[in-house]
Amino acid sequence: MPLPRALSEAVEAEFPRALEDLKALVRIPSVSARGEGQDAARDAVARLLECAGLAVEIWPTKGPGVVFAEGGSDSRTLLFYNHYDVQPEDPVSAWHSPPFTPEIRDGRIYGRGTADNKGDLVSRIAAIRAFERAKIPLPCRVKFLVEGDEEIGSPSLPGCVRDKRERLAADACLWESSARDQLGHEMLMLGVKGILCLRVECRGPGRDLHSSLATSFENPAWRLLWALAALKDASGRIRIPGFHDGVEPPCESDLAAVQALPDFDEKALAGAGARDFLDGLRGVERRRLDYFGTTLNISGLTAGYQGPGSKTVLPSKAEAKVDIRLVLRQDPARIVSAIRAFWDEEGFRDVEIASWDGYPAARTPVNHPAVKTISDALEDSIGRRPLVAPNFLGSGPLYLFEGMFPTIAWGIASHDAHEHSPNEWVGLDDLRRGIRGIAGILLAFGGP
Amino acid sequence: MPLPRALSEAVEAEFPRALEDLKALVRIPSVSARGEGQDAARDAVARLLECAGLAVEIWPTKGPGVVFAEGGSDSRTLLFYNHYDVQPEDPVSAWHSPPFTPEIRDGRIYGRGTADNKGDLVSRIAAIRAFERAKIPLPCRVKFLVEGDEEIGSPSLPGCVRDKRERLAADACLWESSARDQLGHEMLMLGVKGILCLRVECRGPGRDLHSSLATSFENPAWRLLWALAALKDASGRIRIPGFHDGVEPPCESDLAAVQALPDFDEKALAGAGARDFLDGLRGVERRRLDYFGTTLNISGLTAGYQGPGSKTVLPSKAEAKVDIRLVLRQDPARIVSAIRAFWDEEGFRDVEIASWDGYPAARTPVNHPAVKTISDALEDSIGRRPLVAPNFLGSGPLYLFEGMFPTIAWGIASHDAHEHSPNEWVGLDDLRRGIRGIAGILLAFGGP
Repeated sequence: MPLPRALSEAVEAEFPRALEDLKALVRIPSVSARGEGQDAARDAVARLLECAGLAVEIWPTKGPGVVFAEGGSDSRTLLFYNHYDVQPEDPVSAWHSPPFTPEIRDGRIYGRGTADNKGDLVSRIAAIRAFERAKIPLPCRVKFLVEGDEEIGSPSLPGCVRDKRERLAADACLWESSARDQLGHEMLMLGVKGILCLRVECRGPGRDLHSSLATSFENPAWRLLWALAALKDASGRIRIPGFHDGVEPPCESDLAAVQALPDFDEKALAGAGARDFLDGLRGVERRRLDYFGTTLNISGLTAGYQGPGSKTVLPSKAEAKVDIRLVLRQDPARIVSAIRAFWDEEGFRDVEIASWDGYPAARTPVNHPAVKTISDALEDSIGRRPLVAPNFLGSGPLYLFEGMFPTIAWGIASHDAHEHSPNEWVGLDDLRRGIRGIAGILLAFGGP
Repeated sequence: MPLPRALSEAVEAEFPRALEDLKALVRIPSVSARGEGQDAARDAVARLLECAGLAVEIWPTKGPGVVFAEGGSDSRTLLFYNHYDVQPEDPVSAWHSPPFTPEIRDGRIYGRGTADNKGDLVSRIAAIRAFERAKIPLPCRVKFLVEGDEEIGSPSLPGCVRDKRERLAADACLWESSARDQLGHEMLMLGVKGILCLRVECRGPGRDLHSSLATSFENPAWRLLWALAALKDASGRIRIPGFHDGVEPPCESDLAAVQALPDFDEKALAGAGARDFLDGLRGVERRRLDYFGTTLNISGLTAGYQGPGSKTVLPSKAEAKVDIRLVLRQDPARIVSAIRAFWDEEGFRDVEIASWDGYPAARTPVNHPAVKTISDALEDSIGRRPLVAPNFLGSGPLYLFEGMFPTIAWGIASHDAHEHSPNEWVGLDDLRRGIRGIAGILLAFGGP
């Protein structure tokens, strides 16, 4: 159903205010990593939601609190998930304009948080206002869950979702993020991988020794390296018993979704500055692994002397950071136990899992009716049918909402919007289209 | 032959001047790593040697030059090897008195270079002067080779030895260093291991990637780690074909020398802050490995994120520093080729040996007559028969003199003299005993 003319005009009319709202939010440096500006951002978001006619509550958490808002008719319920915090702005010197001073250049607005995800948030709120301006009652029930520490791993969210499960009930959730792909297609993303981050340590002598003593003393860098090599062999095979237990291969519709996605191998290679993909995989084979494969990645290695030249030292300590992307049915705690048991079995009791953190994967099935509802709504409202990615390569705490509602991510930014990097931007057209697309989705949710 | 009374008295009389000479040399901060103070130290050493009645030459090199001095009778020739440079003094804050301001406390003189090896040098020169004071002609021919960049790997020495081979001819060389052991025994050391330092690099994508892309892109940290694990397996076995080619097991007299050395396992464990030795070896078994075993040591590992917490990155580069201690008949260049060939064979063409540096081992046989001459001389002059270590666990450029003369290291310092560390010291008694010991060795060299 295309937007009624009055609504379409109201969407246009709301754009300037949405832009001002975005500028005002970007000016608040709500950097959760430093615990800065979160209160001010929380209160500003609460005011925006109130002005859009919603009933707003601040739910206290161990962090800066969650903004919850609710309104609309008593039909089906759509929950919007967003966050009011942003990534740190450094390196500041790499920005062409100050990160917390929004600046418009060449049809884009630059500033920290424009794409991730203050732009999404203001476009969603503007769409609510557009209904009021058009004097059309909100066609469905609307809820907002806006948290303030997403960028540091959402430490407050599990408690909040546990406590407020009933208040958060919905028929579907529109998540933040997702972005247009390398070829400019709108994208829905239907899941996230889980993640397990491990810090692994091995300790040797009480102090760094002269390396000539390597005849007599064990080197913890070797121990660490052998223990890691035991986890995954040089062919890339993960050797941890039980690692893949319970993992199901992607179903027919998952594979069909992957098959339907366009091929941008060359752009991906160029973007990464790589000559080839792992194992030479290409096209649908590679995409299938991207969306449904696990990883066992070394994100950091530290031991001994790292300066210029050589210093012949036998280090007293070696450390690795490892991250593992999980697919459905893989439980982080179970995998930590499996690694510990495997290392014990293989003679690596001295290699310590010093700390770990993680959560499981979650996905919405590609054939869930809400996917079609949203796809149709976007096609009708902005004239672009989104591609449907059955999963996201990265991770997020979607698992908290499992069994509550289907979760679908759609965002207004482009894949190259420099999220988490200097010179983050969102296009003015992105913002305009975002308001329109959300208005269409709200209409569709209120429909039969 | 004990020292004649006149010589013994002259040794005592020379001690105060030797102490003043040492203080004067310590005041010159001849830190080769920073290229500082080397000219001043060189000239001061040249003057000391001249004042001792020797003919001095400065041999220009690509570094600060070598001081060569010669004198004495036309009998057998003893060459002294020393250096006038020192290690950097940092961390300065850890010194109890300024590193270049000699200070006497509790019978020790503290300052950078007191033990390594300005104390050795002044005691050797004082012994020469003692003969003059005692009106006894020098009983043998004496040569001094004093270089100025030993602490940065003696880059000038190979060219100097090649050019001046005939001028350096001698019947034996008394090397610097060596030290009293953990139980206070005087020690002669008869060789050094060779060394091969490698910097190994593996490159992946053109920039650090988000670790979720590990399904598609090779991680160079894994490649590096697998390549290193291929070199040495978790049992400690070195798998490089040809690595041990030509290496001969220690001979009967080598083993007897190791057997004769005292056991200080417990002190060694405590000193290293370790609970046990590699593979649980103890006593003579462990000492045999120390003196005659090779090592393949990881002295540094660097990849990805090394800060607190986790950052899920797929690093674009990984690097390792590796050092290998070599025994007789192992050639560094041949071993580099063997590693390259092995990695190529095992599928690690992408792992690059970015740079390497090294030199071979060299040893004087334990039953060389000069060993007995020096041992007897020390027993006669200072009343202590030295232990004979058939090798040194560390490395040095002794190979340059192979085939020229036997080289034997004897030094005046204690094993805990903090060489290369803050609060370096040498005992006043060490200095006194050093002059006497050298006088005895000179006498013995002039003997029948």
